[in-house]
Amino acid sequence: MSQLLQNFAQGPLDYYRKQASFDWKKMKVFIDTQEGVKFQNNLYEKLQIHPEFQKNPPLETLNEKRSTATRQALAYANIVKSLTTSEITTTKKEDIILRTILQLSPSAAFKYPGTKRLFTSALQSQGTNRHHKFLQEAESGKIYGCFCMTEIGHGSDTKNLRTTATYDKDKDEFVVNTPDFQAAKCWAAGLAELATHAIVYAQLYINGDHWGLHGFVVPIRNPGTLLPYEGVILGDMGEKVGVNGADNGFLIFDKYRFPRENLLNRFADVTPKGNYVTSAADQKDVRGAILGALSIARVTVTGKSEFYGTKALTIAVRYVAVRRQFGPKNQEVSILEYQSMQYRLLPYLAAAYVVRFFSTYLDEVTQEFVKDSKKQNDPSLARRGMEIHVISAGAKPVSGWTFRDAIQECREACGGHGYLKASGIGDIRNDQDSVNTYEGENHVLIQQVSNWLLKIQNGDKVSTYLKSTDFISNASKILKTKFNASSLDEVCKVENIIDTYQWLVCYLLRETKQKFDVLKQREGSFWAKSNTQIFYCKNLSIAFVQHLFLQRMLTVIDTAPDVNIRNVLLKLFSLYGLYNIEKFLPSLFGGGYVQNYKATNLVHEAVLKLCKDLKNDAVALVDAIAPPDFVLDSILGESDGQVYQRLQTALVRSSYEENGLKCSGEAVSNIIDPRNKL
Amino acid sequence: MSQLLQNFAQGPLDYYRKQASFDWKKMKVFIDTQEGVKFQNNLYEKLQIHPEFQKNPPLETLNEKRSTATRQALAYANIVKSLTTSEITTTKKEDIILRTILQLSPSAAFKYPGTKRLFTSALQSQGTNRHHKFLQEAESGKIYGCFCMTEIGHGSDTKNLRTTATYDKDKDEFVVNTPDFQAAKCWAAGLAELATHAIVYAQLYINGDHWGLHGFVVPIRNPGTLLPYEGVILGDMGEKVGVNGADNGFLIFDKYRFPRENLLNRFADVTPKGNYVTSAADQKDVRGAILGALSIARVTVTGKSEFYGTKALTIAVRYVAVRRQFGPKNQEVSILEYQSMQYRLLPYLAAAYVVRFFSTYLDEVTQEFVKDSKKQNDPSLARRGMEIHVISAGAKPVSGWTFRDAIQECREACGGHGYLKASGIGDIRNDQDSVNTYEGENHVLIQQVSNWLLKIQNGDKVSTYLKSTDFISNASKILKTKFNASSLDEVCKVENIIDTYQWLVCYLLRETKQKFDVLKQREGSFWAKSNTQIFYCKNLSIAFVQHLFLQRMLTVIDTAPDVNIRNVLLKLFSLYGLYNIEKFLPSLFGGGYVQNYKATNLVHEAVLKLCKDLKNDAVALVDAIAPPDFVLDSILGESDGQVYQRLQTALVRSSYEENGLKCSGEAVSNIIDPRNKL
Repeated sequence: MSQLLQNFAQGPLDYYRKQASFDWKKMKVFIDTQEGVKFQNNLYEKLQIHPEFQKNPPLETLNEKRSTATRQALAYANIVKSLTTSEITTTKKEDIILRTILQLSPSAAFKYPGTKRLFTSALQSQGTNRHHKFLQEAESGKIYGCFCMTEIGHGSDTKNLRTTATYDKDKDEFVVNTPDFQAAKCWAAGLAELATHAIVYAQLYINGDHWGLHGFVVPIRNPGTLLPYEGVILGDMGEKVGVNGADNGFLIFDKYRFPRENLLNRFADVTPKGNYVTSAADQKDVRGAILGALSIARVTVTGKSEFYGTKALTIAVRYVAVRRQFGPKNQEVSILEYQSMQYRLLPYLAAAYVVRFFSTYLDEVTQEFVKDSKKQNDPSLARRGMEIHVISAGAKPVSGWTFRDAIQECREACGGHGYLKASGIGDIRNDQDSVNTYEGENHVLIQQVSNWLLKIQNGDKVSTYLKSTDFISNASKILKTKFNASSLDEVCKVENIIDTYQWLVCYLLRETKQKFDVLKQREGSFWAKSNTQIFYCKNLSIAFVQHLFLQRMLTVIDTAPDVNIRNVLLKLFSLYGLYNIEKFLPSLFGGGYVQNYKATNLVHEAVLKLCKDLKNDAVALVDAIAPPDFVLDSILGESDGQVYQRLQTALVRSSYEENGLKCSGEAVSNIIDPRNKL
Repeated sequence: MSQLLQNFAQGPLDYYRKQASFDWKKMKVFIDTQEGVKFQNNLYEKLQIHPEFQKNPPLETLNEKRSTATRQALAYANIVKSLTTSEITTTKKEDIILRTILQLSPSAAFKYPGTKRLFTSALQSQGTNRHHKFLQEAESGKIYGCFCMTEIGHGSDTKNLRTTATYDKDKDEFVVNTPDFQAAKCWAAGLAELATHAIVYAQLYINGDHWGLHGFVVPIRNPGTLLPYEGVILGDMGEKVGVNGADNGFLIFDKYRFPRENLLNRFADVTPKGNYVTSAADQKDVRGAILGALSIARVTVTGKSEFYGTKALTIAVRYVAVRRQFGPKNQEVSILEYQSMQYRLLPYLAAAYVVRFFSTYLDEVTQEFVKDSKKQNDPSLARRGMEIHVISAGAKPVSGWTFRDAIQECREACGGHGYLKASGIGDIRNDQDSVNTYEGENHVLIQQVSNWLLKIQNGDKVSTYLKSTDFISNASKILKTKFNASSLDEVCKVENIIDTYQWLVCYLLRETKQKFDVLKQREGSFWAKSNTQIFYCKNLSIAFVQHLFLQRMLTVIDTAPDVNIRNVLLKLFSLYGLYNIEKFLPSLFGGGYVQNYKATNLVHEAVLKLCKDLKNDAVALVDAIAPPDFVLDSILGESDGQVYQRLQTALVRSSYEENGLKCSGEAVSNIIDPRNKL
């Protein structure tokens, strides 16, 4: 292990590093595996000396940001290709590839592996052999594809997308058309500058008959000149809140033609004579199958928010460990010693671990599913695919919102200095922010969970491939249980936390169903669903997802390499669970699960105790998941803890660069000379 | 009224405007007063045609942003000066002046009236006649002052600031010195480029004796050349997360000298012979008086967050009213009809009204206090000043956090298009973000409230000038009451909401005090305070502040000009109250105030019902507080509701500007020609 991972430089973080109850290197190897850490080391080594990844003066124009991101993506793809990966698993490898570039240059990550993977996975999941050439050309870099679903006027509401693809039998071609600007495809990354091909979703028409939404692979730019073809209008979404190196664009078709074979025909096809053929019972099933296949791409998004969150937490935890202010008897203490700071940061650090383990798992089961669905023709595959779809549709918003809040808390925990661009947290926030509305707007997406759960009938024996709902079979028994912890130890126990969540899911499911049924009579199904979202469907989905997160964490804890690691992971488990249970207390009281009013106090004290118990481990917990300093790129968060030295260097440098330092008085130049350490 | 305010252009927002239960113009005049609206109209008229405030290509370099903000601040100061204000009150006038420039150009607002006011109010509150010349020169624009408290290593912890000012009797001068970079003054707006003078807080030394923190007015730049004087080193904080037109800087003194008279000697003075003279009992009182005087400047910050929040809410409410998606029977509906959207936005709209009324009130009582404290020498003034200090120290974080969350919800409510820079919400978030850590870091600041409340002894008859704590005199009676609403109507009632808050404050005060007393025995006072922050001190302070907000809202409602306005304000009152009470349910159950488990359901249903009742008023509520379109500057939020037309224009324009539209196919150019309406 000592060869695999180097010690951090000595400095102000030593105090907490020495206090840690576990070995951070062992934890890191446990999380990333030995082969994973070796792969990371090789990757970091190449990145750190690569000219495209050196720190440069800030990029100012959109064009600069775009072209830098493109060059970085290309460089990164080449570095990744050059690495021999020996025994590392595909999931682990892909996790490290995406994590590293997303933390190093989020805009480059959109270009590689982001958009490229979206394009190829749509081809793989919806195309057939006849689209193999596109896949090959995309893999070899001959063509570059993007993914066009959303239109200006419609996003999540895919049924109402308005781009049309009409079959022209005489020429054996489709004619794709954009009726007006509201139907322009938009937001697709890659569309504004790079893409030669687009996966386009359009309403299929044959002989005047409407067959619903279908996917097509459409050539849009000449791969040699990158100029759009006649009939294709491409534009730029312009400046965004973040990830401005990504070239999000819009696309308008003017009766543009392409060959019939470009229809992605895995679920339905059009014959040369214009017959629509499908094995699905009706068009709704075709649309369902297409959207289901798409969800596979969404799986990685749960992890993305955690990648951003972990970066922010690394900065904030290290900064607050170093920063010393008010203490007893005029002695200053690290502000990590404050209860308030522990409560603000540690539950999110727990979430970083919990979500990290879960998203790795979700990647794994998805890859297995994709593999199985290629070789088998088993009707249970559809149900399995649906379960993965639902879980990813729930995990993405829960993770997105959690780390959105975590990043903001990190920004404020760093005080005024967190507002410096050089802290890095502002950019992390602006980049992560996109996750909450792309690849499915969070509030729309999370409804998939409650919609799915509401189909379970009272007393159903529920058993699914991933066992996510199996406990609901016991709902009637679970609903009779009560919260009966009466000490801090009891309340922190694994069983108590799992029991509470299972009661909560069963309770919210029953209540939501009852409310929905009543409203449905009165208002019809659409409004009944809309009017059960808040406090019911949404809470149900969140509790269901958090319960899955916790269950996965338990499985991971069972494989912990030593008792110290096991113990700290158990504390993270309990903190994540109780921090969130605290927010559900109104429902726990409201549903009669908690009957003793003292439970509020017990849960509060337990959360605070866990925070306190974990504060000496916080720095080591961060060390085990932190990106290396050159990836982190924050003057407040580097691993040696030399915050003030870096602040000084950064401020003096920016003063010289921006305006020339307004300096006079040579005698003191040593104070501000960046070469002088404090 | 019809002459004062014009109707909005017809368009997609008409539907909701016609549904409104009240007259938005009457509401606006009620809030801003007739004279206020006239003043606004004159101000808008001049701003709208002023060359400095025309929309320009985006500013990219820091220098461009800085100089634009400076020119705008200067132009704004001149416009303000040119307006005759007739009968408008000072508070109303200052509110409009700050609100308008903050919503139009936040960076310019830092330069005027921001920093200028900080400088002059410190002179007024801590200086004496001998500093009158600085005040005059600042008012006439001959000098430009800034405000330097925070150091790199210490912010809120003012006792540990390390800049020193040593009296040199021989030359009748102070020598101010910065021992090292961690003691450099930093963050002060104006310091990097503009300020000729700084209010500097430093540890006073006379003859080796340390007399604690004192304020000085120090000349730092030659007003003619803007070059720093010998012995003054000035630098730039560089790029920030937002408000990059503000020139925040840092300042290092190298044994720099200035006259003894520049000590701000309102609370303590140094004689030419080096004697320290003060009427205060000890140095702690001097520091308290200085910090108290400073809090006056903080009063406006509560409003600032609301100014930002109102801007974001205007954009989001109008956008979601226009945006149509999923509906029943394949018919699309405005997404404002969704329960989830109502719940996400309307409680924040309620907060915008509640906080607006409160911060106006806080401005008024502060101005009165400043006036009274000049003419009287009443010992009760200190208590009155303390109460204003505490309330402003609590209102600033509560408002800051509320609108921080509101802005984020607005960003997500606008879906993907909210992520466009042209939506305006990203910038609003990045600018508002600074408020949470400047002029007192929120978490440190809010402790002032609980510290103050904890001094109240059980059974004390408490009566303060602003009556903020008077109800606590009845604590023992209040603590015997129970939540007994049993219908939606009852739960929404004013009395129920006020009663719940009063119980909550009394309960949290008692519990906090008990916990603190126990911990103090064990851990000493410092750690006891730190370890009662979460769930105790912080919740106590928040509940106390929200109760004050609600009390003020009631007073305002009593003066409503008609029953329709009264009714809608009452709904906003109830929604703000119950939305926040819902979050306190764990304590309400935990303390035994709520004993019937059905209360959870009742509160939930009440919040949702209020949201639904208010949704048809949402657009009109926004109309009454929205800035005009040219100030709003958002393609999603303009008052005519033509969202898609503006999206089209903006995207096509940015495509041409950035890269030249990748367009071919002339036949369709009409689709994307910005001159063609949809």
